[in-house]
Amino acid sequence: MMTGKEYVESIKKMRPNIYKFGKLIEDVTTNPHTSEHVKSVARSYDYSHNPDYASIYTCKSALTGKVAHRWTTLMDSMESVRGNSDLKRHQYRQSGTCQGATCAGWTGLNALWSATYAMDKDLGTNYNARLKKFMIDEVEGKSMALSGAITDAKGNRALRPSQQPNKMSNLHLVEKRSNGIVVSGYKVQICGIAAAHMVICVPGSGYGESEKDFCVAFAVPRDAEGLTIVECRTGMDRRYEEEGWDVPKNGTITQAWLFFDKVFIPDEHVFMCGEFKYTGKIIGDFAAIYRAAIGACVAGQGDVMIGAAISMARANGLSQKTFQATLNEMAINNELTYTMGIGATALGKQDPSGLWVPSPLQAHANKVLVGRVPYDTKVKCIDIAGGISETDCFPSYADIQHPSYGKKILEGLTAGCDGESRGKMSRLVTWLCNGSGIPGCMHGGGSPDGAKLVVRAFTKWEDFAKDAQRIMGVPEGAIKEPETKK
Amino acid sequence: MMTGKEYVESIKKMRPNIYKFGKLIEDVTTNPHTSEHVKSVARSYDYSHNPDYASIYTCKSALTGKVAHRWTTLMDSMESVRGNSDLKRHQYRQSGTCQGATCAGWTGLNALWSATYAMDKDLGTNYNARLKKFMIDEVEGKSMALSGAITDAKGNRALRPSQQPNKMSNLHLVEKRSNGIVVSGYKVQICGIAAAHMVICVPGSGYGESEKDFCVAFAVPRDAEGLTIVECRTGMDRRYEEEGWDVPKNGTITQAWLFFDKVFIPDEHVFMCGEFKYTGKIIGDFAAIYRAAIGACVAGQGDVMIGAAISMARANGLSQKTFQATLNEMAINNELTYTMGIGATALGKQDPSGLWVPSPLQAHANKVLVGRVPYDTKVKCIDIAGGISETDCFPSYADIQHPSYGKKILEGLTAGCDGESRGKMSRLVTWLCNGSGIPGCMHGGGSPDGAKLVVRAFTKWEDFAKDAQRIMGVPEGAIKEPETKK
Amino acid sequence: MMTGKEYVESIKKMRPNIYKFGKLIEDVTTNPHTSEHVKSVARSYDYSHNPDYASIYTCKSALTGKVAHRWTTLMDSMESVRGNSDLKRHQYRQSGTCQGATCAGWTGLNALWSATYAMDKDLGTNYNARLKKFMIDEVEGKSMALSGAITDAKGNRALRPSQQPNKMSNLHLVEKRSNGIVVSGYKVQICGIAAAHMVICVPGSGYGESEKDFCVAFAVPRDAEGLTIVECRTGMDRRYEEEGWDVPKNGTITQAWLFFDKVFIPDEHVFMCGEFKYTGKIIGDFAAIYRAAIGACVAGQGDVMIGAAISMARANGLSQKTFQATLNEMAINNELTYTMGIGATALGKQDPSGLWVPSPLQAHANKVLVGRVPYDTKVKCIDIAGGISETDCFPSYADIQHPSYGKKILEGLTAGCDGESRGKMSRLVTWLCNGSGIPGCMHGGGSPDGAKLVVRAFTKWEDFAKDAQRIMGVPEGAIKEPETKK
Amino acid sequence: MMTGKEYVESIKKMRPNIYKFGKLIEDVTTNPHTSEHVKSVARSYDYSHNPDYASIYTCKSALTGKVAHRWTTLMDSMESVRGNSDLKRHQYRQSGTCQGATCAGWTGLNALWSATYAMDKDLGTNYNARLKKFMIDEVEGKSMALSGAITDAKGNRALRPSQQPNKMSNLHLVEKRSNGIVVSGYKVQICGIAAAHMVICVPGSGYGESEKDFCVAFAVPRDAEGLTIVECRTGMDRRYEEEGWDVPKNGTITQAWLFFDKVFIPDEHVFMCGEFKYTGKIIGDFAAIYRAAIGACVAGQGDVMIGAAISMARANGLSQKTFQATLNEMAINNELTYTMGIGATALGKQDPSGLWVPSPLQAHANKVLVGRVPYDTKVKCIDIAGGISETDCFPSYADIQHPSYGKKILEGLTAGCDGESRGKMSRLVTWLCNGSGIPGCMHGGGSPDGAKLVVRAFTKWEDFAKDAQRIMGVPEGAIKEPETKK
Repeated sequence: MMTGKEYVESIKKMRPNIYKFGKLIEDVTTNPHTSEHVKSVARSYDYSHNPDYASIYTCKSALTGKVAHRWTTLMDSMESVRGNSDLKRHQYRQSGTCQGATCAGWTGLNALWSATYAMDKDLGTNYNARLKKFMIDEVEGKSMALSGAITDAKGNRALRPSQQPNKMSNLHLVEKRSNGIVVSGYKVQICGIAAAHMVICVPGSGYGESEKDFCVAFAVPRDAEGLTIVECRTGMDRRYEEEGWDVPKNGTITQAWLFFDKVFIPDEHVFMCGEFKYTGKIIGDFAAIYRAAIGACVAGQGDVMIGAAISMARANGLSQKTFQATLNEMAINNELTYTMGIGATALGKQDPSGLWVPSPLQAHANKVLVGRVPYDTKVKCIDIAGGISETDCFPSYADIQHPSYGKKILEGLTAGCDGESRGKMSRLVTWLCNGSGIPGCMHGGGSPDGAKLVVRAFTKWEDFAKDAQRIMGVPEGAIKEPETKK
Repeated sequence: MMTGKEYVESIKKMRPNIYKFGKLIEDVTTNPHTSEHVKSVARSYDYSHNPDYASIYTCKSALTGKVAHRWTTLMDSMESVRGNSDLKRHQYRQSGTCQGATCAGWTGLNALWSATYAMDKDLGTNYNARLKKFMIDEVEGKSMALSGAITDAKGNRALRPSQQPNKMSNLHLVEKRSNGIVVSGYKVQICGIAAAHMVICVPGSGYGESEKDFCVAFAVPRDAEGLTIVECRTGMDRRYEEEGWDVPKNGTITQAWLFFDKVFIPDEHVFMCGEFKYTGKIIGDFAAIYRAAIGACVAGQGDVMIGAAISMARANGLSQKTFQATLNEMAINNELTYTMGIGATALGKQDPSGLWVPSPLQAHANKVLVGRVPYDTKVKCIDIAGGISETDCFPSYADIQHPSYGKKILEGLTAGCDGESRGKMSRLVTWLCNGSGIPGCMHGGGSPDGAKLVVRAFTKWEDFAKDAQRIMGVPEGAIKEPETKK
Repeated sequence: MMTGKEYVESIKKMRPNIYKFGKLIEDVTTNPHTSEHVKSVARSYDYSHNPDYASIYTCKSALTGKVAHRWTTLMDSMESVRGNSDLKRHQYRQSGTCQGATCAGWTGLNALWSATYAMDKDLGTNYNARLKKFMIDEVEGKSMALSGAITDAKGNRALRPSQQPNKMSNLHLVEKRSNGIVVSGYKVQICGIAAAHMVICVPGSGYGESEKDFCVAFAVPRDAEGLTIVECRTGMDRRYEEEGWDVPKNGTITQAWLFFDKVFIPDEHVFMCGEFKYTGKIIGDFAAIYRAAIGACVAGQGDVMIGAAISMARANGLSQKTFQATLNEMAINNELTYTMGIGATALGKQDPSGLWVPSPLQAHANKVLVGRVPYDTKVKCIDIAGGISETDCFPSYADIQHPSYGKKILEGLTAGCDGESRGKMSRLVTWLCNGSGIPGCMHGGGSPDGAKLVVRAFTKWEDFAKDAQRIMGVPEGAIKEPETKK
Repeated sequence: MMTGKEYVESIKKMRPNIYKFGKLIEDVTTNPHTSEHVKSVARSYDYSHNPDYASIYTCKSALTGKVAHRWTTLMDSMESVRGNSDLKRHQYRQSGTCQGATCAGWTGLNALWSATYAMDKDLGTNYNARLKKFMIDEVEGKSMALSGAITDAKGNRALRPSQQPNKMSNLHLVEKRSNGIVVSGYKVQICGIAAAHMVICVPGSGYGESEKDFCVAFAVPRDAEGLTIVECRTGMDRRYEEEGWDVPKNGTITQAWLFFDKVFIPDEHVFMCGEFKYTGKIIGDFAAIYRAAIGACVAGQGDVMIGAAISMARANGLSQKTFQATLNEMAINNELTYTMGIGATALGKQDPSGLWVPSPLQAHANKVLVGRVPYDTKVKCIDIAGGISETDCFPSYADIQHPSYGKKILEGLTAGCDGESRGKMSRLVTWLCNGSGIPGCMHGGGSPDGAKLVVRAFTKWEDFAKDAQRIMGVPEGAIKEPETKK
């Protein structure tokens, strides 16, 4: 298992192919827009070696039997999927935000595990063996950090990929060669790229035969030839270029767009190529695991919001007790999404491939709640913190350094504690609730609308209607769904 | 394992000591105010013998290794506590409401299991052995249905039991005899009494030494000498006296007040007598199990609400699709409380006694949500069902029998189906949402206010404050809780 | 202006044509199922003569210039429509529930005022003059209490009235005679019938030409020949037959079904007959006034819930302060629906006929909220009141009279006050929150779904889209609504 | 009445005394951090001359009888206070955010109107005449834009101003001179300063005699000697320095801290100096007007959110209809806060001074709702807009200009419309929901906690308790508030 330092070195060596604000980032480990994310991933590598946290950050690998970084392993039991939740909640508590490079790529690998197993069984392919080798030799063997790329640029939502005027809107197969494949297209909104060694790419949706070309899954080095990456904006991105503490510097989210221009993927990294029938399984298993765990992400961020709210209350000169009822609600919100994820996991079952898959109905119901509950937590955090935090309402760190009036700002900030500590805590609240700390509760890991479709599909509507009718002694067939003409 | 028929016979034989409307109920198995509850418990006995449902209604007894009615067994694993949830959700789906006689008494027994184990270990008593014998020989051996009595009449909430002007406000020890104890006092709001063989009584709260006399736990036959029972009102209780279907007749809740007047409890049924230090443990373990499972109760009732809403939509001539978005929300509500309970259970751990105890933080957070979420489900059910169901707004079954105008009512009820089926379904909605079907989401199993205290006690406030401060680099100790003068 | 006593006498004289539980009610002023409603209407008559309340219960008639019972007058100004709200909130505070016989009939008259004015102007009819005479000579002149009948039995919601298999599903014209019309059909869920002198009937919806026969509006004596009335059930209706205080006896709601069997309506009471184009206006103006005022109804009931919650807290031995945060929320809920109604009224305008019509957008938005907010108030009331109130969870008044155990119940009820006072207050909470006190927040005055259609129709979607695009400098026409194929 | 151009000229002439990022802003009308706010205020000046909008932006001055910019006039009627609401909603629809320089200063003037009237009447001062002259000659006469400064830096919230370790925490009297007063201290979080001619300063709270020195009210030119101003950060402030459309450029909020260092205020601009008893009235009347109108602010911003959501739906290739249910809820939210403000105004009354004061109970209840409802609207806007808008998740305008990959970004953005239009609309959503567009719903115009105290003070708790007890026939005095020991 790599240490944080080794990890940073390994990332530093990669070819620069990431841009921000129209400029190439020469070294992602030092550029202010990416270095915070690298730093927080490095912390996870270090925590794997820290006896206090090792049980969270590592586990015994199901494939090798060795202790490994958790994010390089197969999730083959309820406990290991729960470990995903607990890892994320803890990571959020360290940085206040997410660590893309230890998240979606890992989940993508796991979803491919079950899908490749099914393909091999049904079709006689050998994807699973290939994947196993990749997971053992490279991912676990080299202690990799992986991003996961699912979302395509999509184009017009009302059209399928093959119907888009621009085929690049979705990642697709360009050419099959004897030793691999060539792919082109755009994957967007991809977390943690700057801190990842490789990217796990999977189809953006479940597809039918007409979309065969878009049914490719593979691993690709982040710095592969032909791959150009552009970092997205975040509300407060410019602050990372500034000195001082107007933004927390203990880890941050990064998201990027990936432009594939005829990128070659050697066979040993290809895990699906045209087997459209199995795209639904990839998406289904991915979503079940991801959406069970996402409740822990927002719970972990909510924990930091609780801490920030308590700290601001005190910084304002007021006691925690004043706000205890609201704080209790914040805690209940956090436990709600976390525990529903755990419950969905406990209600899950083992796939024939060995993968543990949380119960979709509950995992997706949780995703809907994750698109609601954290917003309430944020509002409560702002309520407690006060006006200064709501709109970031005090002058900049640069102003505080001003020789004539800077001191007055610190005086003005002074309340229940020194001005600088109060200022810092206030910036944290704003960043968490209105700014770059936002991890995408609503659409991260997919939108609630999609989750509602799964809820609809898995709920036993007719059974419940029959229950109701039986309780009242309504004769069977007396109450029918009306015939619809269209 | 008894069958339903044998169970009803066993209940019929008991001494009449239950009153309603000022009159003694001679036979609880036929009196309309109690027979519905007996009937639904009998169904559970029968389902134990039905291969379709046996996995829900029975399990392998941890104490005897035999297959037993689930509600007579020790919950010694995550699976067995989950079985509690699944049993309740299924029971609710049969009758639309709760089955007191297979619920709180069972949970009370289990809470006593861990408390007696601790007492025996610490104090050298032999309560646990006594309880084990009782559980094997009587509860499991005789396939008993048990009520559980926790809540005392209490008196003035601002005073402790020993301070109440009337000592009868709380159940208490009157006298210790060589072969048993004598108790007096009032236990109130006790579910399922009419259908139970015995009642498990535990202290109503965690108590200190001054309240020693109130620290008694025991099992007592429902028809014991000196015990007078009066059934409570429910909103629609008079309808059970009427012919027809103005109220569902497939099981109903019953609640009662128990007046103990110097009731003798033989030693073999006494499981605590004065050991005040362990009352907190009884209440704690009881609440953790009960509040994990209560999410399934309201989910099961919510399932019936979904079924009733769909049926009413169709009965009104409209398709389910019209209301799908609202129905999805109802389903999410149900999964929320159910799954949080499962999650709390999965996060639990095994007590040294062998009892599996769900994690209190999450179980109590769920109790708070159970005091909210089902109300939203009810409102949505009423929204879909329409005005006729909201206020029970059509004439009585008796009116429908009227020779001249009765037919017109049925004509007026006719819409997407025949008038009677629509009328029945409408009555179900009203009963579920405004009437006797109410299982006490808010205060059943204790009030949310108490649950919030547990949430407060188990949340790591200071850890979260430290996380927030560390993220911003606030020096340790810079932000302090203000000193309070009073 | 009649006094309460004169009013009761006038009602007592009417022909018995109301049934409940299959039996004719001989005297609605003494029958327990109807007398409570008569009593509360009588109180309104008396308050008109009480200097403390006269400003609420009376106003200067716009048609005669005399002081009149408010519910017999034309609402011709913002102040007079606001008077409607204030009357209703005060009435609710007297009885805890609604007074149908001073509500929908009055509003119906006012809606007919503007519609008849428009018909006369456009079509040369003389309905308005006829209505004016009726309002002056009969309604105001004889101090009438009026019910209003809008909702038809409807039948299958997916079909129009003329398509229903049974024409009786909707009130319709049977025959035109030289001196009047003959009507048949069923009007359902009609409030306050038992306490009304006459019923104002209007079409149940806006209709097109095919539904001409269903476009009739008229006034009819409650005891007209051919009119049979059957009272609906309410959850706790049987309690009104009982002695004691298990239900509040200070006014109650009544709702009934009206079966018209060839009822003759003389011309002077006919205000529409076939003029389908104006049915939309009747419904529109009716709904705007009614839905502005309904916010006051639920606020008034919410006021009583606040009072009941405070009283229960004290009865339990706890101070109001313990629950102040929740009580504040209840108060905010009440002011929300009341004030939005006032605001909708202030944003209204005067119809050419003189009628003041609240702004539909806001009145209907308020209706949607009235279908939500009061449920939250109820849940909060139950939360404060405790388990005893949630499920009506103590024995009946009859049990309290029992010679042997009745006293024990009172002892058990004793807490922060005497047992009877606490018992009474608890019954009030249950009745308000789960029982017959329910005034139909969701569907009363029409369903939220219909209100949402009005919100949709009156919101300036395209203006807002243009605002957004202008702010960002998006070229006009660049973003278009996609063409839909179907 | 000035035109927009004249207004900008007048602002340009002022002495530079505003800083941002440690640097003096030489010209607020061109500096990117302030020019947007100046521009949107200039638009209001122009709209006063535009016949389409003149009824919103102007009114007949109650003091001079002339037509004047609305924000320079006395609000002496229900209509004129409603005009405040309508002005704000319209302004928000132009820029998506608030226009501080036509808001709080105006309201401050009006609150001083009633307070000075009362002081003059009680104490024989002549503040009101002085204020009248100032309002006629300067404010209206010179078409002024005014900021309002209420909030002090405060220091420790648990201490009063006079107890603060640093007296500068609150604005205070330093010296009385023959022709004026000298003041020092910090006012913070002050909106619209950069676009204002003068600042109206009032005490930050109601004070007692011990706080006499803090009871000063006056008008001061924005560029007065001794006054140093530092602009606050906002989340996206750096984007205003950038080229392109990563932030909307059609008006923005500005907020600043004001450092008064022995600023001299001539007598003619002093409207209170030590009359502590009247500070409560200033705050009370200010808050009633401000909190009635703030519902319109957030409604106006919500209108733009509706427009942005519809535009994003279409830009994604989906029709408005897909999201109609959610859009309806957004519209209802907007009407809720707007209409409650109108209702509070309609329920208000005229002060002896002529000022129309909205009803405090309802205005403050609305403030509590304004701290909740708009957050729900934002969440719904994000839900519709999609992941790209939630976290600002696409590369910067600068990246789009990149010669090699910029075009690919536009391709990736292309969906239901061209890429640039979709990108712009997405940035608007992020800015509105997560960024600098935030107008401070929670704490702007004061915090909900303070508003709840007013709700508590103005609600008739005991009346409601008596209603409940009377309805049940509980004897007077039977249920009492428990005595509290402490």
